[in-house]
Order: sequence, then C-alpha cells, then structure tokens
Amino acid sequence: MTTVGILGGGQLARMLALSGAPLGLRFLVMDTAADACAGQFAPMVVGDYRDEAALGEFASRIDVATFDFENVPAESARWLTARVPVFPSPRALATAQDRLAEKTLFRELDIPVPEFAAVTSRADLDAAIGAIGTPCILKTRRLGYDGKGQFRIKVPADAAAAWDALGAQAQTVGLILEAFVPFQRELSVVSVRGRDGEFRAWPLTENWHVDGVLSASLAPASVDAALAATAIDHARKLADALDYVGVFALELFCRDGVLLANELAPRVHNSGHWTIEGSETSQFQNHLRAVLGLPLGEPRMLGHACMLNWIGAMPDATAVLREPAGHWHDYGKAPRAGRKVGHATLRCDDPLSLADALARVGSALGREAQVAPVIERLRARNA
Amino acid sequence: MTTVGILGGGQLARMLALSGAPLGLRFLVMDTAADACAGQFAPMVVGDYRDEAALGEFASRIDVATFDFENVPAESARWLTARVPVFPSPRALATAQDRLAEKTLFRELDIPVPEFAAVTSRADLDAAIGAIGTPCILKTRRLGYDGKGQFRIKVPADAAAAWDALGAQAQTVGLILEAFVPFQRELSVVSVRGRDGEFRAWPLTENWHVDGVLSASLAPASVDAALAATAIDHARKLADALDYVGVFALELFCRDGVLLANELAPRVHNSGHWTIEGSETSQFQNHLRAVLGLPLGEPRMLGHACMLNWIGAMPDATAVLREPAGHWHDYGKAPRAGRKVGHATLRCDDPLSLADALARVGSALGREAQVAPVIERLRARNA
Repeated sequence: MTTVGILGGGQLARMLALSGAPLGLRFLVMDTAADACAGQFAPMVVGDYRDEAALGEFASRIDVATFDFENVPAESARWLTARVPVFPSPRALATAQDRLAEKTLFRELDIPVPEFAAVTSRADLDAAIGAIGTPCILKTRRLGYDGKGQFRIKVPADAAAAWDALGAQAQTVGLILEAFVPFQRELSVVSVRGRDGEFRAWPLTENWHVDGVLSASLAPASVDAALAATAIDHARKLADALDYVGVFALELFCRDGVLLANELAPRVHNSGHWTIEGSETSQFQNHLRAVLGLPLGEPRMLGHACMLNWIGAMPDATAVLREPAGHWHDYGKAPRAGRKVGHATLRCDDPLSLADALARVGSALGREAQVAPVIERLRARNA
Repeated sequence: MTTVGILGGGQLARMLALSGAPLGLRFLVMDTAADACAGQFAPMVVGDYRDEAALGEFASRIDVATFDFENVPAESARWLTARVPVFPSPRALATAQDRLAEKTLFRELDIPVPEFAAVTSRADLDAAIGAIGTPCILKTRRLGYDGKGQFRIKVPADAAAAWDALGAQAQTVGLILEAFVPFQRELSVVSVRGRDGEFRAWPLTENWHVDGVLSASLAPASVDAALAATAIDHARKLADALDYVGVFALELFCRDGVLLANELAPRVHNSGHWTIEGSETSQFQNHLRAVLGLPLGEPRMLGHACMLNWIGAMPDATAVLREPAGHWHDYGKAPRAGRKVGHATLRCDDPLSLADALARVGSALGREAQVAPVIERLRARNA
C-alpha cells in the first residue's frame, strides 16, 4: 500500500486523489485550512507548512510527496526531501516559483521570452521601463498567481503608482518588469516527465483569461502542426533541464505566429482539466504515475474538448448535465468572489458539435460572453 | 451540500463515491467491516445492517440512500425508507433478491425465462426435476451471488446430493429449481432509470464467467441490432414494472439467437465497469444522477472496451499501464481467494486493436486463458 502525500488540499489535490484511487493509492493531504476541499475524499493533516511538527507527522505517514500548490515554502519542501521522496524536486519548484529564475532559464534554453528585467529599487524600475518600453507589467517575483501581485504600466508616468502598489515587496519577494505582449492567443502545453526521463505532452491547449483568471480552455488548439511541435519541444527542453518529475504546464503567448514563453506552472494545471474526459489518460493520473515511477499513460485526445471555469459560485448544473457531451466538476467549495469553485468539460467528436453544445450551455446559463471566443475559434476552424 | 448514504462499502460503493465526487456530492458508507475498501475515500458508519442505532446514525447524516450490496435485509431498507429517500425502492430490491419473485415477474412481462419451479421439500425437488428435466440447477431463492448457493443436477440421481447441500435452506431462504440452459453466450444489459421514468441503456455487453464468477466483459457485444433491441426492451419493461430508480443489470443467456432472462442485479454491476472509460457517462455517475433526480448522462460508447476481472490478488500493473488503451482499477482490498480485488479496462477505437492489446496483456500476465474467448470474438467479428 502506497500513500501519496499532497501539500495543499484544494481542487488539484482533490482531483489527484480521485484519479489516483484506481491505482490502489491512498492519499494524505496537508493544508492550513481544515475545510480544504480535498479533505472530503482524503485524510488530512491540518497545519502550517512551516510547522515542523505538522510536517513531521505528514512525512511519517506517507511514502512520497507532491504538491497541489506551488507556493509551499521552498525550505518546507527541502525539509521534507530529507525525509521522503518529493516530486517535483524543490529545485524545480524554486525555479518555477521565481519569475526571474524561470525567465532566465527560458532564455538559457533558447526559448523566446518577452523582454524582462529584475527590479530592486525605484531607480531600477525607471531604468527598466526605459529599456523595455511601455506598455509593460511590474510583477512580484514570487507568490503571484491568477493575476495577483501585478501592476500594468501603460505609460512611463504609471511608474509611481506601480511602485506604490508593489515597491514594498522589492526587498522581500522581489520584483520583475516584463514587456507587455500584445498577443493574439494564449496557449499552454501540459506535459509530464517520468522519473526515468520519459516525456509525454497532451495536445496544445488554447486558453482565454478574464481579469487574469482562466475562463475557458480548448483542446486541441487550432494551430498548425509546426507551431504545436515547437511548443512541445520547449516544454521538453524545460523538463529535461530541470530534471522535472510530474506534470507541469508551460504557458505561452502567440503573436504573429511566434511563441513567447510566459510561465511554467510546476503542477497539474487548470488548463489541463479537460484531460479527465478529453484524453486517454488525465493529467492527474499521469502526474501520479510519474511521481511513483509507473509507466506513463497515453495523452492522446478523445475528440475535441472545452473546459469552462466556474468562478465565485457554481451555476445551475442542469444545462450541462443535459448535454450529451457535458461533464460536471463541483469542487465542494464554499462560494467566494474570485474563487475557482468548479468547472465543466464538454467533449465532442467534432469541432462544430462542440461549438453547438457550447452555444446551448452559454445561452442556458447566461454566459454567452464566456463561450463566445471558443465558439468563434471552433467555427473559424471549419470555415 | 448533498450527502449520499451507501449501504455496503465494497468496490461498488468506492467507485460510486469516486464517480460522484465531481457532482459535488459527499458520501457516507455503512458496512459491517471497518476495513471496507470504500472507507478509504468516504467516511463510514461501521455496524450491522440490523442494528437500529447504527442505521439511525447513518440515516441522520445522509440526504438519500442507495446500495452497493443487494442483500441488505429488506426490513433494514424499509426501516430506512421511513426516514430518508431510498433508491432503488425496497420493493424493487425485494423482487431482485428473490429468484422466484424475479422469474415470476419475467414471465408476467413476457420476457422469456428458463423453466423454473419453487422447491419447498425433497418431494417438490423430485417433482420439479421430473417436470423440468436434467440438467438443472437447484439454487437458494435469496443470498446467492457469484455462483454461491447453487448445486448442479446432471442426472435425477443427483437430487439426494443437491438436497444434502441446500435442503436445510428450503424453509429459511427458500429454494428454486431452474432448467440448465446450454447457452452459447452470456449477455447483460446495464441500464438506468431516473426518478421521472427516463430510461437509458448502455450498449449490450457480452460476459464470460469462470467458476461462476465474472472473468471478462466485452462491449459492445457482437450481436445483431434486433437482438440488442430486444434485450434493451426487456430491461425497460422490468424497470417500468418495478418503478425502478438507478442502475441495474439484466443478465441474459443467448441460445440459438433467443434471449432468456437469467437475473436482475439491482445495482451498478461488474459487467458495467467498462463504462468508466468506455462510455460518455459511467454507470456509477448515472446511478447517482438517477438517485438524485438529475438529468441522466449519455451512455454512448467510446470505441470498444474489454474489462478483465482480477480475482484473489492483483497481478502486476505494468503490462496494463504500458498499453496505450490500458486503465487500471485496484480496489485497495487485501488479497483473498475468490475475492474481486480489481479490474482492468482496455479501450480501443476498433475491435482488432483491442484484440491485439488483449493478446499482449494476456501474454505478459500469463493469463492467456482469460483473454482468449474475448480475442476470438473480436477477431471473428472482422473475419
């Protein structure tokens, strides 16, 4: 009997546990919140990640550890590594946690990346704006996700406001200035690398964000084969460079047919939720297979899939459950503004059926704006 | 937040909980064994089904109840029905629990059934053998499953041995004598009926048993469309007659192109495990949708699927995990002779690829005999 420990008990941990159960695994989740939603289906240790007593109890009851949450303190991950195998490694985690280290690695691997510069002072900020130009974005180096810890600089005079908002963090988590990329598409590669270096990627996914939070994902993305191959090659180079074990997502911008790396998320990823029904092996099961050294499963698609995120509160399930293509995912979380509480995946054999299903669901739920760009993309593919 | 109570905590309860989690449901399992495998993913009440205190605690913590195990005492089900909605109804359960009531219902609905007779005494047995002829099978009316509680009578002189084996139960659970059907195929219809009477059936499944225990299932069964339609029509008539709510399996024999009803299993069924990967909506999720009054999901197939049961102990997982088509299900149970401990499902787009995958898995695991009849059927389909 193998017990997998998961640091973080949100929906990713929950879906890991549900997906790993058929492998005969048991799970133990550690989270600071006693009502973390993974706790509905797995036993929990409740405690702060920096609390060595709680972390020690967690370590003593598991065979291997992984993450639902990439912002676990790197020192906690290292402490754990001394006691139990941890995948992905704290080193890979530390790189992905730090936008500067991550973008420096992209550049080292010849993966195109938007212009960026480290910012440690107000003078640095002005110099960086001068070098990179506007528009650009000031971001914290660490602990940012879903658009948090970011400030958009439209003109050089916005520097003061940006510094007011984030300057205090320059000496703590650090800051980075990034060029704003007027991209046409946001894409992601969700892929997995095994303990033995075997690498598999799911088909490229196109993503739409609203207010910095993922709203919809479509797979396979409607891009030419060469672009998809380049994206997957970038992911493979990163995985090899980091000796990465497990699933990760590489987020990319596409501008005029050129891919620019945005960030690496060192965990199962929201843009890969469609793999549960839309591919032969889900990202959740393949992450566990990788972490445990088992053969990786096939990531081939089953048709065309679109995932719609539910933010804040769950809509009525009926419209999705009535769709022959509809699959519902309620994370069992209390509603809260901005919180990811669930998603739906629609999976069809062909793009036009998927567009029609999305139109019906969008209309029934009054979410026409959420489905519109996906429908447009699907219909353009066949135009 | 809706909590579904499940009486019985085996692999069916476990797969119900795993499949129902995405609907935002919580589960509470009741079982007599504290180590019941569903307890690894759902909270439990441990107690005897006849213990009103335990049953009362169970009832107080749930919104609706269903079953993993059809031999829950009918009086316990009725006791529960007075306190909480229970699906399927105790009446449907009672009919399915009693081979005599079940076969009488088949006959009333003009569903062909092998000859049978109630047996309450040794004299009855001799008279029934005279009327039905040999070979025939003496069975307990209740509590039989997986070939238990059965005695094969090859010649009339076997009556004495049959009575020695089962006669003591004539006045307790009751006995029935059934004609032995020299069938060519065993088929099952797994179907679901909603609270509102909506009915859906998965494609017909062909099953192979070894020593009375399911060994392999193949879907869709290779039968002509008229036969499949007749089988599904039988299932629909039964479901309507019983006002059935939830998933059930109708097991059928096929002899010379004629279907004979064998039995009705009032629950999710081993011959429907392939629906997890092989169809748009699994039997487990559709059972829960039915029980909760939600819209039923689409039962259409995704390709061709074969399920292999693992009995006694789990084989090495590697051969199945290496197959692109392979899906592994370890129930987390301790090994024990004759116990169902897991299964694998292979799902392919076409029958010949499935035959090839089965041949590789059978050979790698030294289970050529288990896969041989399925491979033969798949290859004959394309011959």
